[in-house]
Order: sequence, then C-alpha cells, then structure tokens
Amino acid sequence: MSQFNNATIVKAANIYYEGNVTSRTVLLEDGEKVTLGIMLPGSYEFGTDGPEIMEILSGDLSVLLPGEQEWRQIQGSATFHVPGDSSFKLEIRTVTDYCCSYPKA
Amino acid sequence: MSQFNNATIVKAANIYYEGNVTSRTVLLEDGEKVTLGIMLPGSYEFGTDGPEIMEILSGDLSVLLPGEQEWRQIQGSATFHVPGDSSFKLEIRTVTDYCCSYPKA
Repeated sequence: MSQFNNATIVKAANIYYEGNVTSRTVLLEDGEKVTLGIMLPGSYEFGTDGPEIMEILSGDLSVLLPGEQEWRQIQGSATFHVPGDSSFKLEIRTVTDYCCSYPKA
Repeated sequence: MSQFNNATIVKAANIYYEGNVTSRTVLLEDGEKVTLGIMLPGSYEFGTDGPEIMEILSGDLSVLLPGEQEWRQIQGSATFHVPGDSSFKLEIRTVTDYCCSYPKA
C-alpha cells in the first residue's frame, strides 16, 4: 500500500548519525509501529530490540545481516528481516527511502 | 500538539537537494495537508504555490522571507509564514526538523 490511513504520526523526527539517518514514527490502526525513514550515503550500524522488517522503498545499498558473511546488494525496492536483539550494517550509496516495521511477537 | 491522530501518511518520501531536504506528506483529519521534514546543513531556496506556515521544531538556521532585507535567525523552535506564489531562502546550520502546513484558502 502506498499510504497508511487512520494513523498516528509523531511530529518530531528521530535523528541518528547527525541527521544522515532520520525517521518519523507512525502508529498504525492495528497498534503496529512503523518508522518511515531516509538514509543518506554513508556506513551505518543499527541494533534491534525486537525483530524488524525493513522495506527499502528506493535506494542503492548493501546490507550485512547478522549471521551472514556476504553483503546483500539492493537496488530499487526490497525487503529484509532482522532478528531481534541483534545488529545489522548498511552501506548506503544513494539516498535511500525506507519503511521499517516492528511486528509484535 | 506532539502528534497527529487519525491522519493519512504517504509512504514514499519527498526528496529535494539530493536528499539533503526530505519530507513526508501527512493528510490531517480535517483535510489539511502538512509535510514533516528534515533539512541538513546547506543553502536552499523553495518556491510556494499557496501560502505556507513553517514551524521549525528544532534547528539552527537563517531564513530570508520574500520582501524582507534581513535574514531572520532561528535557534530552537519558531514559526514563520510564507506567502503563496513566492519563494524563500534558508541557510541551515544544524539538522533542522520542521512541520510545514498548507492552509486552505
């Protein structure tokens, strides 16, 4: 879907890496949380509490998921899952637009 | 207010200046449109169609409004109005979080 309806949007941004990664928190009708974010070119590492589903809406990047030896290459759109209580690395080559979901257990 | 309830948020970001300025479009319950955005340090100029109300949520910046000779200095939060069919200039010194409203005539 291209938009979220009946959602609650937190006004203030979440800001990481001096603004090179930013997102907005959206609470969906069913109580699920997603963040809509932008990553500018650079190298980043993020930790997870619970599991995350990262949907890349657009971008050119590589991702190294926990337990994997090889970087996955993404150009355009793609989705990857990150286990909870872990971390993953990103190499962003072009402005990347994403939607991250935090599914409830 | 710190959040928007019962709103629609468009998933894909609006991307300007190679990602140095990005925003998400939010349609409020009353039909009004706002964009929640981030500006990274740099110099920008934006044109308006209709009038805009810019609420700076956080940041350190200068703004030159149409018809004004002097740059306004903003540190922290502030609001300024931009007439429709005009343009304004921004000098962003630190990551700036904003909410732009597009009031209906």
